[in-house]
Amino acid sequence: MASAESTYLTDLYADWSARMAADPEMGLPALRDLFEEWHLPTVEPEGVTYAEVTAGGVPALWCRPVDAAADRVLLYTHGGGFVVGSRHSHRKLAGHLARAIGCHALVVDYRRAPEHPFPAQLDDCVSAYRWLLAEGIAPGHIATCGDSAGGNLAISVALRLRADGDPLPAALVPMSPWLDMEHKGETLDTNAGSDALVQRPILTAMSTMFLGPDGSAVDPLANPLLADPAGLPPMFINAGGAETLLDNAVRFGESARRAGVDVTVDVVPGMQHVFPFLAGRAPEADRAVADIAQWVRPLLGLA
Amino acid sequence: MASAESTYLTDLYADWSARMAADPEMGLPALRDLFEEWHLPTVEPEGVTYAEVTAGGVPALWCRPVDAAADRVLLYTHGGGFVVGSRHSHRKLAGHLARAIGCHALVVDYRRAPEHPFPAQLDDCVSAYRWLLAEGIAPGHIATCGDSAGGNLAISVALRLRADGDPLPAALVPMSPWLDMEHKGETLDTNAGSDALVQRPILTAMSTMFLGPDGSAVDPLANPLLADPAGLPPMFINAGGAETLLDNAVRFGESARRAGVDVTVDVVPGMQHVFPFLAGRAPEADRAVADIAQWVRPLLGLA
Repeated sequence: MASAESTYLTDLYADWSARMAADPEMGLPALRDLFEEWHLPTVEPEGVTYAEVTAGGVPALWCRPVDAAADRVLLYTHGGGFVVGSRHSHRKLAGHLARAIGCHALVVDYRRAPEHPFPAQLDDCVSAYRWLLAEGIAPGHIATCGDSAGGNLAISVALRLRADGDPLPAALVPMSPWLDMEHKGETLDTNAGSDALVQRPILTAMSTMFLGPDGSAVDPLANPLLADPAGLPPMFINAGGAETLLDNAVRFGESARRAGVDVTVDVVPGMQHVFPFLAGRAPEADRAVADIAQWVRPLLGLA
Repeated sequence: MASAESTYLTDLYADWSARMAADPEMGLPALRDLFEEWHLPTVEPEGVTYAEVTAGGVPALWCRPVDAAADRVLLYTHGGGFVVGSRHSHRKLAGHLARAIGCHALVVDYRRAPEHPFPAQLDDCVSAYRWLLAEGIAPGHIATCGDSAGGNLAISVALRLRADGDPLPAALVPMSPWLDMEHKGETLDTNAGSDALVQRPILTAMSTMFLGPDGSAVDPLANPLLADPAGLPPMFINAGGAETLLDNAVRFGESARRAGVDVTVDVVPGMQHVFPFLAGRAPEADRAVADIAQWVRPLLGLA
């Protein structure tokens, strides 16, 4: 059963849903302000310092836990349907992950839709990855990690690098990834009653903004469910059992496993979309952060 | 002349003003979300760690620069008309000040109006101060500091302590303080054309929420312009030359000087309300932070 503490996120999502329903004309600036509240469930991670940086032309934020390994990096791609969310809304979550892993995290403020449709987001995240290499970080010392739309990017960055013949990161950590731009997953209906935030209308609105006039819902770089995962790095995917996007994690995990990828899919019962936002507050999130850290540390060459 | 970089804050305020004018029905949650953007002008201060804490029953945030003196504390009271703003919107600004001073800052998340009218804010900030003493911090090693409505609190906390016979802090640093609950200052009119945010209607709305059904605009603890400043600690007040609240700083400074208080009033020409929010971005803000630090360090017993 979900912990009492985890209802903080459910309540926040229910409040957002009610506010969006009450104001169908809500403009993009107000919607973006609303989603900036995403940091609230996350308790400030102690012992982490921050620094703004331009990473290959892309604004980004370093999360640097005191005494962490500066040459191991989590490339963090934030969620928000490619439309909302920022390096600010996800700073604390990335800080928790970096601290648990003992590495630095780079949170990428990629250009957002609809002003910048696909593949601007992917381009920016790939630029940030290549900047890390130019800064002397070994590809084998980098893991990509992201939530929701950022979980998509954590995968599509690797797909793009593979296509370009670039060295791949050591590991991928998509959390509650949003991959299905066709909105075909069955949990979209079967979990519609338990997911407090993510429903068809918001997904449709965001995928329309993301794909823009020229993008395609079946482009494997926009919809990694349609990509061939063969040769991708080891992958740890998590998702909440209550969320409508659950099957995105499950379907991609199955596809990766069939393709011979070393993949773990961790579904935590009763949890909402991107429940690791509850880090420092709810035991399910602290456990997820610890599990990710334990899994990724050896892949990054950390003892 | 104001620096090119400082237009970031002017533009942000103009955007807020336009959004509030376009949506006169904007509810409190949306207004609070809007003002959470206040952190955007401030560049992330490097080398500062953070920790949430409950300070005498009040939620607060520690800003702890690496290698700073843990026994010297800036008690930071955030602005936002007693209605908006939070420990999150002001985290980076407090971090810059703490780092420049070489102390820790405690940003107090006091209860906000209208849910909690005067004197809930003052009560909470006094509770946080007394908690610091109970934690072993010497009163002579504490400075109160705050912006706008928080500049009011930085003064009224000291007034309340004086009235209660409690030991006073070593120094007060009100920045662009909002003190005049009667809206009588002449810069409210003479600077109406240059202030991009603060105009009579928003002040009237916020003072009404702040004072509530029982508060009075001439209560010296709500309106420190009407208090007797005699015996208050040394004070460094700053304000922007372009702001409508400029005369609040000037009038309180004159009143304090007449009462024999050691007071410095620093008015920076062309600057907007709470221009130190531009720390890390605009030279005027960096200079203000450095000036405050240089002034307060000896008062806190720092070399």
